Amino acid sequence: MNVDPTIATRVKAGEHMAIARLITHIERRSAGVNEVLAQLHQHSGRAQVLGVTGPPGSGKSTLVAAMTARLRELGRTVGVIAVDPSSIFSGGAILGDRIRMADLSGDPGVYIRSIATRGALGGLSRATLDAITVLDAAGMDVIILETVGVGQAEVDVLSAAQSIVVVSVPGMGDDVQALKAGLLEIADIHVVNKSDRDGALRTVSELREMLRLSKRQAGQWNVPIQLTTAIRGEGVSELIEQVDSHRAWMEKHGELERRARRNSATRIRWLAEEIVHDRLKAGRPEFDFAVEEVTARRGDPMTAARQLIDHH
Amino acid sequence: MNVDPTIATRVKAGEHMAIARLITHIERRSAGVNEVLAQLHQHSGRAQVLGVTGPPGSGKSTLVAAMTARLRELGRTVGVIAVDPSSIFSGGAILGDRIRMADLSGDPGVYIRSIATRGALGGLSRATLDAITVLDAAGMDVIILETVGVGQAEVDVLSAAQSIVVVSVPGMGDDVQALKAGLLEIADIHVVNKSDRDGALRTVSELREMLRLSKRQAGQWNVPIQLTTAIRGEGVSELIEQVDSHRAWMEKHGELERRARRNSATRIRWLAEEIVHDRLKAGRPEFDFAVEEVTARRGDPMTAARQLIDHH
Repeated sequence: MNVDPTIATRVKAGEHMAIARLITHIERRSAGVNEVLAQLHQHSGRAQVLGVTGPPGSGKSTLVAAMTARLRELGRTVGVIAVDPSSIFSGGAILGDRIRMADLSGDPGVYIRSIATRGALGGLSRATLDAITVLDAAGMDVIILETVGVGQAEVDVLSAAQSIVVVSVPGMGDDVQALKAGLLEIADIHVVNKSDRDGALRTVSELREMLRLSKRQAGQWNVPIQLTTAIRGEGVSELIEQVDSHRAWMEKHGELERRARRNSATRIRWLAEEIVHDRLKAGRPEFDFAVEEVTARRGDPMTAARQLIDHH
Repeated sequence: MNVDPTIATRVKAGEHMAIARLITHIERRSAGVNEVLAQLHQHSGRAQVLGVTGPPGSGKSTLVAAMTARLRELGRTVGVIAVDPSSIFSGGAILGDRIRMADLSGDPGVYIRSIATRGALGGLSRATLDAITVLDAAGMDVIILETVGVGQAEVDVLSAAQSIVVVSVPGMGDDVQALKAGLLEIADIHVVNKSDRDGALRTVSELREMLRLSKRQAGQWNVPIQLTTAIRGEGVSELIEQVDSHRAWMEKHGELERRARRNSATRIRWLAEEIVHDRLKAGRPEFDFAVEEVTARRGDPMTAARQLIDHH
């Protein structure tokens, strides 16, 4: 299936059908998709990109639905991308959660999508970044990236977010400890969801202790801890205010620009790795020839690698 | 520190001092080391390369020492490379184990070396492959690669081995289960070491059951399970016989050639990734310029990635 080149115009007009089709092309790596993405990239960079991550059972999806509803009340359009590596196996478990989004799905100011790719996790990361470009160019004010936050690829993909919200729930105990390692450093805002449960205040004080130990430098953003009960919408307005404060702080301190540059660097690196990976695939005559030469000791691996990259 | 270009000649003559110095250059990525390795590659490909892997406490190092002693009795020269990611932190914990090698260390037919790099695990893998080339070109008959076998990088590096020996010990219980996932498929020979301990036969039958479940295809190598008590040298002659049988089997069935090709492909890919990684480093003017262009939406990431790879 090739990509219709006029799709870019329809995506820029915010047509949901065109957005959906283009993201499917991205997942399938259809021919012509890179050219369309190159065009759309010029029209992106305006959206506020949020990452929401937390363990299964933390109520992330409900929180994202509640945030989306609140943002709509404020008149802002919202795109939601659920990164879903599990669906490679299960065929889309996360889509079940999306039912909670049902009351939002008739709203033309909301676009919701699970991203999955059959290939490697690298493919998932790349598809997610590309989907952000699409929703951004389609004029979404806010893009929410929802991930389970397990595994390096999922953490990597969060680097595309300007603000990262890490969701905990009371009574997680050791799981909170486990969060320490990977997620503590990347949280811009901590949320303790299901805050009506026993132990909410203990979770808050555990998080506060972790933040204290992480030794914030003077002039750094002061990571807040927000209590929410997403299912009843409690604390969600305040969370949106925290997110907006973080964006204002980043803008003032040059951090937004720094994160934009980091995001560009990551995208360029991932694409470069992909290009090289494509050139060094078994079945490619130049690669197979190089492997024969190196195996037969007529050539050495370093020279072969340089030639494959430079004279492809 | 630059590499003396005459070092290749001295390595080929089997001089231990030259081997040691070149491997240090490899660990430090000294200027000129790639040219020397390209030369030595032409003189490599003769050695029998064994991988020995197993969890800490399985007596791997003692087994490797016993195998080395037996190979020397058979008149074969031996190079041992201990892959040692832990030494990045501990400053060389494995070197303690090398004391057991002390009685071999005066023998000019044996060369023993721990490999460590301060950088990423990718660097360790690359350094290990390069060290194999050095010992191979230095005329070692057998090269033994000893790894703890934890983590993807360690498993990847085993792809350089022609025969992979996976060491278990009685009473490991769940650890044997954990081995299943990563190491069962790659074992050419299973060793149950410390076989004088209680439960040795149970470990053998557990391994046998795992092998049965893995459904060997007709015409495939029949993975043997060898009992050893390395500390007393028991079962070690038989293990060397198994290793030699495996090599003969591979030679007969074209598998040696297939593994040599796979090894070449891996080396070329790793080097290509490294070349690209060097070109896409912050601080490189071309890369920094591309990041600015993409961030400012004057260029798109795909075009930037292609240009950085092709017009560096």
